[in-house]
Amino acid sequence: MFLSWLALLFSILGAVTAVDICSDYPKPDPCLPGGEWDPVLNSCSGYDGRSCFQCYSGQFCKTREDTLTCQLSSTGGNPLVIAQFWLLNSTQEPCSTTLAHYRPAYQNPPGVPLPPLEDAIRKLHAISQNVDTSGRQLIGGFGATMMLHATVAALSEMILKNCTSNCPPVVDVMAQPPYYDNYPYIVGIVQTARWNTSADPTSPYTIEILTYPNNPNGVRRNPLVKNPNHVIRDMVYYWPMYTDIDTTISEPIMIFSSSKHEGLAGTRFGWGLYQDSVLAQNVAQVVNVLTLGLSVDVQLRVLASIQAIIGEKLNPSGLLPFHEAGRTVMESRFAKLSEVLTCATLTNYPSSSHGAYAWVQCKEGLKCLDVFASVNIIAEDGALFGSTSQYVRLSMLLPDAEFEILIDKVKALCSS
Amino acid sequence: MFLSWLALLFSILGAVTAVDICSDYPKPDPCLPGGEWDPVLNSCSGYDGRSCFQCYSGQFCKTREDTLTCQLSSTGGNPLVIAQFWLLNSTQEPCSTTLAHYRPAYQNPPGVPLPPLEDAIRKLHAISQNVDTSGRQLIGGFGATMMLHATVAALSEMILKNCTSNCPPVVDVMAQPPYYDNYPYIVGIVQTARWNTSADPTSPYTIEILTYPNNPNGVRRNPLVKNPNHVIRDMVYYWPMYTDIDTTISEPIMIFSSSKHEGLAGTRFGWGLYQDSVLAQNVAQVVNVLTLGLSVDVQLRVLASIQAIIGEKLNPSGLLPFHEAGRTVMESRFAKLSEVLTCATLTNYPSSSHGAYAWVQCKEGLKCLDVFASVNIIAEDGALFGSTSQYVRLSMLLPDAEFEILIDKVKALCSS
Repeated sequence: MFLSWLALLFSILGAVTAVDICSDYPKPDPCLPGGEWDPVLNSCSGYDGRSCFQCYSGQFCKTREDTLTCQLSSTGGNPLVIAQFWLLNSTQEPCSTTLAHYRPAYQNPPGVPLPPLEDAIRKLHAISQNVDTSGRQLIGGFGATMMLHATVAALSEMILKNCTSNCPPVVDVMAQPPYYDNYPYIVGIVQTARWNTSADPTSPYTIEILTYPNNPNGVRRNPLVKNPNHVIRDMVYYWPMYTDIDTTISEPIMIFSSSKHEGLAGTRFGWGLYQDSVLAQNVAQVVNVLTLGLSVDVQLRVLASIQAIIGEKLNPSGLLPFHEAGRTVMESRFAKLSEVLTCATLTNYPSSSHGAYAWVQCKEGLKCLDVFASVNIIAEDGALFGSTSQYVRLSMLLPDAEFEILIDKVKALCSS
Repeated sequence: MFLSWLALLFSILGAVTAVDICSDYPKPDPCLPGGEWDPVLNSCSGYDGRSCFQCYSGQFCKTREDTLTCQLSSTGGNPLVIAQFWLLNSTQEPCSTTLAHYRPAYQNPPGVPLPPLEDAIRKLHAISQNVDTSGRQLIGGFGATMMLHATVAALSEMILKNCTSNCPPVVDVMAQPPYYDNYPYIVGIVQTARWNTSADPTSPYTIEILTYPNNPNGVRRNPLVKNPNHVIRDMVYYWPMYTDIDTTISEPIMIFSSSKHEGLAGTRFGWGLYQDSVLAQNVAQVVNVLTLGLSVDVQLRVLASIQAIIGEKLNPSGLLPFHEAGRTVMESRFAKLSEVLTCATLTNYPSSSHGAYAWVQCKEGLKCLDVFASVNIIAEDGALFGSTSQYVRLSMLLPDAEFEILIDKVKALCSS
């Protein structure tokens, strides 16, 4: 209902070519046997959603070309013969035919999302005004985590490759503390890089990961590394629900996720925007070596979500309803927390009024984790984020039922 | 319809707890607000499909525990607050509610598939009799490619960690030629391993990848490395459509894929079976560092497919209809190819009668790739597989329309 309504809206506005993933699944006709008509891509598809079967051409891919002169690639291990089974063994009902109606082929070219998904993501950025995607290639992967891994791997390898003398064995990767506690692990399994918080930011062999706005404290910082091509901007929180979007950013390397934007953490999709097309190709290559391409199921899920979000009319505030609803929740949560976080032992670090986390500072000499543990709140030790145990991180992303308990616990803590 | 019929069948047989992914999506009631009742897991779920919201317990998770004494973890970045938006903004219709009806949380514990998927995979192996899964942990990832990467990474690191003297800097990884041409790339990005086809198989610091049956030639080979714990069996083709399942195999490390079994290459799911539970944990950890867990969308897709396959009655041959249909197609394709592959310049290497690829040997001195190129067939050069250019690999997995053209081209080649 929701999506059909959106489809209608789109058809009236003509702004975006809407895809209804319920009804716009590939249909067996009018293509040649075993082929499909794909409304999402508006073309017949032999199997990969982009072309006729090999040696077929013309309208609906029905013309068989000359046997000897037409080119037929018999390479790769794409199990299309098995995919045919699903086409023959399912009905046309949207849900019972799940098996056949998703595209079975490997994603090609590697790393590049399905065209309607790439369009939807660029449109989302344009409407949100958070990022200018023009002149940037968009590469997808299984979450921002994988995009970060692949970007560090590809960029560090390129830096070493371009080095001619006094070359280090690996490139140093740093982030300013406090930083996201998974970075050391993500960087740790890259051959050509090492995590080093003491790296020299003026060295041409240092990469900085700049979380913008920062996790855990919501602050927007300038990079210490001056070469913008060596700064990887992790911008998964640069959306209206988490921060004020007052600047449209256009840096060389920017990474986003469906987890933190659409809330689809369990779907696993992230994307990177790259000014340098060689870097983009190399990032895609790392993703491809690791996974042999993107998941079509994942992409269709993300496509449906982003379509639903960008299909709504902007509120008078200039925000999409999805973003405004999220912003309202996050702001009210920070307000509630500030109201109860009044202990003498605690100082709320006023880094943000509506970020994804609260970064709480306790009085000097106190282990902040223990303060919260006294009311059975498990927080995250500031030391994990490259800071000290005088701080903790609290998630502001809990479901309502749990957030209310968090507030009640803090209230009890501060009134005791 | 297909799945409903299966659900009925299962409920009669009582053999497997069937999950209908169309109707068995989590429902908002009877759990607490923002929570869901999950028929797949037969439990209320706060958010991760496994438990009540924190600080709630009892029937339907409706009892709120004491504020001070109940433990509340406020760690991690799981965007549950955003997931709530989808619950409130969709209807109950199966397809228009795609957005809400998939589970939004990060997969937990890392690498371990959803319980019904793990059950379905073990049942599939038991019915197919290809593998004895008892005493083996099952870890999932985004395709067999990622499972191989993670297994090489975890195993090589463990080997180096247990080494006490004369330790090499990295572990050698080898495969007997001809081997799958992606192995060198997959191994190439592992820190603690290097691809080395000249590795000494008697060294305790050598890992062998044994593709069983082999890609490209379908042959079943014995490993050269004698320690079975250092042999990674890539068994993605060890199913009835590709080979005779005459032995139920039970080796320490075995890897499979939904790509080659269900034909769902574009979904990206693979799994490994590990006898050593420490290795299993370490493999899961590599997957987790790379992707922060599995995709629930991907798992539900695979679950639906495997349920459909194992829900059918065995044929008189003892095979599942899905397997027998695949086997019949593959055998008829090999028969057709043998019939036309009669040139004096070509010798069909009779490695298999129904594998996924044909491994074709040309006359000595001929570049086999050029022979096929003369009728515009693009094959894969044997040299890529660690063999020589006297061989090529042809895919037997093309869709019917293309396979017929392949046959016509070979016929034209051999009659000219």
